[in-house]
Amino acid sequence: MSTTAQKGTVYLVGAGPGDPELLTLRALRLLESADVVFHDDLVTDEVLALVHRHALVTSVGKRCGRPRITQAGIHALMIESAKAGQSVVRLKSGDPLIFGRAGEELAALRAAGIAFEIVPGVTAALAAGAALALPLTDRKSASKLIFATGHHAEGKTSAPVWTGSLPEDATLVMYMPGRDTARIAEELRAAGVASDMPCAAISHAARPEQQVAACALQDLDELSCGPAPLMLMIGRAMAPLLDGEAVETLELPLREAFESLTDKR
Amino acid sequence: MSTTAQKGTVYLVGAGPGDPELLTLRALRLLESADVVFHDDLVTDEVLALVHRHALVTSVGKRCGRPRITQAGIHALMIESAKAGQSVVRLKSGDPLIFGRAGEELAALRAAGIAFEIVPGVTAALAAGAALALPLTDRKSASKLIFATGHHAEGKTSAPVWTGSLPEDATLVMYMPGRDTARIAEELRAAGVASDMPCAAISHAARPEQQVAACALQDLDELSCGPAPLMLMIGRAMAPLLDGEAVETLELPLREAFESLTDKR
Repeated sequence: MSTTAQKGTVYLVGAGPGDPELLTLRALRLLESADVVFHDDLVTDEVLALVHRHALVTSVGKRCGRPRITQAGIHALMIESAKAGQSVVRLKSGDPLIFGRAGEELAALRAAGIAFEIVPGVTAALAAGAALALPLTDRKSASKLIFATGHHAEGKTSAPVWTGSLPEDATLVMYMPGRDTARIAEELRAAGVASDMPCAAISHAARPEQQVAACALQDLDELSCGPAPLMLMIGRAMAPLLDGEAVETLELPLREAFESLTDKR
Repeated sequence: MSTTAQKGTVYLVGAGPGDPELLTLRALRLLESADVVFHDDLVTDEVLALVHRHALVTSVGKRCGRPRITQAGIHALMIESAKAGQSVVRLKSGDPLIFGRAGEELAALRAAGIAFEIVPGVTAALAAGAALALPLTDRKSASKLIFATGHHAEGKTSAPVWTGSLPEDATLVMYMPGRDTARIAEELRAAGVASDMPCAAISHAARPEQQVAACALQDLDELSCGPAPLMLMIGRAMAPLLDGEAVETLELPLREAFESLTDKR
């Protein structure tokens, strides 16, 4: 297998949380060598700036529920581009296999007989933990880490994010939780979560514009969350955000990193 | 913040699953510029080969329960090296905040007043999913992803990996599950998991020597797992491994990647 993007192949690539420094080397090489890039809305301009300047770059995002392109349309674009002999990167924020409809895209590629490769990435929860210096697991108090999402398939939008009992020693991360924190609080109470359980709302995780708001579950209804993209984290691992302990401010080396990368090209 | 490792600072860095191509750019830069690297046993030789040749590289792994160095000893090494004006990378396989005792190491660094930064990485579960082309979430059948571990703090080693009911639409990933699959199967049955639930044992995830064995829960007692490091994945997302559907064979560009990286130096 070559280190550059191959003609006729589709690469499902994780773009990570947005900072180009948190791309994998494999992702960088593919962005630098692909003919075509189809990306989600959340992929940042800094990451897209690394795409080869002769490549065709197209947003296929479906932001805010207003589809510009259907999922079937994305499949057709990838398949037709690959059949036309292009090397194709399908670029998804975070990790490509987490809450990203990769299953449907892989099924379409398989059905069309298109070669593909998946390049994992740094998912937003782990990047947020690193930016906040908050371990999401702890051998004494948080032995489980749970990723859930408020986004469901059509017809399931009213399904609760979590049902059943939630272990006391879990960190629950809700991707795209929506803004109805009162409903989420009710679901968590129904799952037996203690009223003093720390909850954090993280907007633009691991980005310079990151905002964090934290409270106990009993106050989650009233929590003022920042703008989307939003993530909720619930668990004892969030306690430092409530206790007023020092939490590292985010100071990612975005500008310098970007400059050093572009200098190389 | 500089793009190179700073004197007197400790960097907790995720090494990813072992393929150097799956390092982040930030991790690569820090390995290339650090004075001292303290790494876990699972960090691969290919990754360690990227460390600057003048750096001091020390394994602080505690493999197979035979401690070569205590956790307090690791803290002391990091702190003394940083106080001596060295730039220090603490290199952990996968992501540094997942099941890696990062909380204890951060607490020690904070107590000693040492500057630190955390660099997230690609955790083994996501790398395994990519290597197997198995989405770990699916909007219809797997809306939760749960990471758990069979390794616990002392005095808790007999605690079950999972208690309570496990959602039907979850993918459960057990890191370091141990080899007692009969006990794990019993725990899963107690958690209400269906006897036909697909289970997969993945040895050396996302490495060239990766081995995968799969069965339904009813046969988990008898599953022949490969050697450690081992990971168990349980959920409908593993169904393609049982159905005999094509699963991509792992063909990571290790050698070429490694050569291209070393050519650059």
